[in-house]
Amino acid sequence: VNIDEMAVLGAGSWGTALASLWAKHDKKVLLWCRNAERAGHLQKTRENGDYIPGLKLPESIKVTSELRNCAMVDLIVFVVPSTALRSIALRLQELSGNRKAVLLSCIKGIERGTGLRMSQILAEAFPRNRIAVLSGPNLATEVAQDLPTATVIGCEDNACAMTLQSSLGSSLFRVYTSREVKSIELGGALKNVFALAAGVSDGLRLGDNAKAALVTRSLAEMVRLGAAMGGHPNSFYGLSGVGDLNVTCYSERSRNHTVGKRLGEGETLAQIMASMNTVAEGIPTSRSAYECARQLKIDTPIIDQVYAMIYERKLPMAALQELLQRQQKAEEV
Amino acid sequence: VNIDEMAVLGAGSWGTALASLWAKHDKKVLLWCRNAERAGHLQKTRENGDYIPGLKLPESIKVTSELRNCAMVDLIVFVVPSTALRSIALRLQELSGNRKAVLLSCIKGIERGTGLRMSQILAEAFPRNRIAVLSGPNLATEVAQDLPTATVIGCEDNACAMTLQSSLGSSLFRVYTSREVKSIELGGALKNVFALAAGVSDGLRLGDNAKAALVTRSLAEMVRLGAAMGGHPNSFYGLSGVGDLNVTCYSERSRNHTVGKRLGEGETLAQIMASMNTVAEGIPTSRSAYECARQLKIDTPIIDQVYAMIYERKLPMAALQELLQRQQKAEEV
Repeated sequence: VNIDEMAVLGAGSWGTALASLWAKHDKKVLLWCRNAERAGHLQKTRENGDYIPGLKLPESIKVTSELRNCAMVDLIVFVVPSTALRSIALRLQELSGNRKAVLLSCIKGIERGTGLRMSQILAEAFPRNRIAVLSGPNLATEVAQDLPTATVIGCEDNACAMTLQSSLGSSLFRVYTSREVKSIELGGALKNVFALAAGVSDGLRLGDNAKAALVTRSLAEMVRLGAAMGGHPNSFYGLSGVGDLNVTCYSERSRNHTVGKRLGEGETLAQIMASMNTVAEGIPTSRSAYECARQLKIDTPIIDQVYAMIYERKLPMAALQELLQRQQKAEEV
Repeated sequence: VNIDEMAVLGAGSWGTALASLWAKHDKKVLLWCRNAERAGHLQKTRENGDYIPGLKLPESIKVTSELRNCAMVDLIVFVVPSTALRSIALRLQELSGNRKAVLLSCIKGIERGTGLRMSQILAEAFPRNRIAVLSGPNLATEVAQDLPTATVIGCEDNACAMTLQSSLGSSLFRVYTSREVKSIELGGALKNVFALAAGVSDGLRLGDNAKAALVTRSLAEMVRLGAAMGGHPNSFYGLSGVGDLNVTCYSERSRNHTVGKRLGEGETLAQIMASMNTVAEGIPTSRSAYECARQLKIDTPIIDQVYAMIYERKLPMAALQELLQRQQKAEEV
């Protein structure tokens, strides 16, 4: 694998931050933005103020809304909403670009209906390409500020993982490699659902003890469902599992936590979504995770309550009370 | 086991909160306070404002500074500083009280020099008594405010654990039982050391990504050292491991986190300790954990850096840089 030209699909906060990291490594980066007008504005102003204020796009980034331009590069990085990935993958497939391109998913989600991970959607469209995933406790704004950050790149092809590692890693952005693709993706996707629950707990002002108990049970639930979906239990105790769970449940800058908190404070989901310009992936993921758990017959009390709050208008206090007042018994971990 | 009369040794915030919980369960509770003058004041005013403001002691609590009064009860609860336990246990032993008393340690620490857990110190002094431990993500002030909380009671004798559970548990203070005494104690003790490191990271303003990476590696280090000290790896993923680690690393109300944060902000340990009226157990535990790790030949980079900051005056920034800039490699969990 040799990475010279590359494309980052998705110009939200994380896509923009990642594109900038690669640009600092002297890669020629295309940053793809679906909306032509916004692409033109970004290309001209070199700032993405709505998503990640203060970050100046390096000169080696070219912003485009033409997917065709992105098809011939060596590395295609996917940072679009999980619900948009399949259609973008199909459009790329039709463009029949570089057959040796490495595809890297940085998306945290599970497809509704199919229960597929993002790398599986890519593999369906591009069965011959090498596919990798990136996930970890990575708030985009902090990465853009050069604050110390660690992440994991997972790929079954270890040489490919190491090439990606050296293309992106630095003393401040530490990249670890792993072969545990499934666990990495499932940890990154499921933690958003649990962050909604933790946010609700904060919105209801239930305190730090209750939240710690909830996050502890969330980790157990992540491992239980994640293992049933093919992940390796121990992998969930790494950066993309417990690490990402913690940053998302505890940081005030976490989107999913914010949505949960506002729900707990009494706003409706419609009100909250109308005021946000970004996707809280925990919302669609709570449904797909709920579907997967039912199909696999896994006990997921926290996911079930989040699903009920989001899709059945269950009141936050009622949902949290059910979670926190389950029968006292022996601790199962 | 029948618990009618009981004693709580130690009238700090946690001892006082626990004594109040038992009093609500209609137990006759002696609350022992080392200092006679303070005991008299507490008994008269019914408030422990220095430690846990706003909590009014129930009438069924009697505050005493006479250890003799505490020797004959059915249940003796230890909530003294870890460094004081051995001498108090020896004083109690000399009083040769109720030979059938259950002894419950709520202390989070490891003895210096011996590497013993608190329940082991009790077992040395009282080889024939049933001994249990209690630990979990339990900020005393929140328990006193009746905010939802979960904890674990560990005992090799399951019937004894269940008696303690029903003596103390309620819909808001959830008590789980376990036989994993070692892991419960080790999780509770070691997390304080990691909370110091997390606090330093916050004091240095390294951000939420860095902190999440640090807490993730802390959990791995807790499991590694804890397993070498006899704990069961999986138990550390429960309330007394990851749960207590989270609340202590992330809550602004955590003592050990506060000490670390002030260290990171540039205060000296002497300045910090002079301004606190309570013990930050992470300070002595960082030394005993460091000694245990050396003896067992376990790699503990985080404990080592905390030890160096506390006992060798290593500068916080230098210590954190070493932790965050270790070589990029494959992730090991």
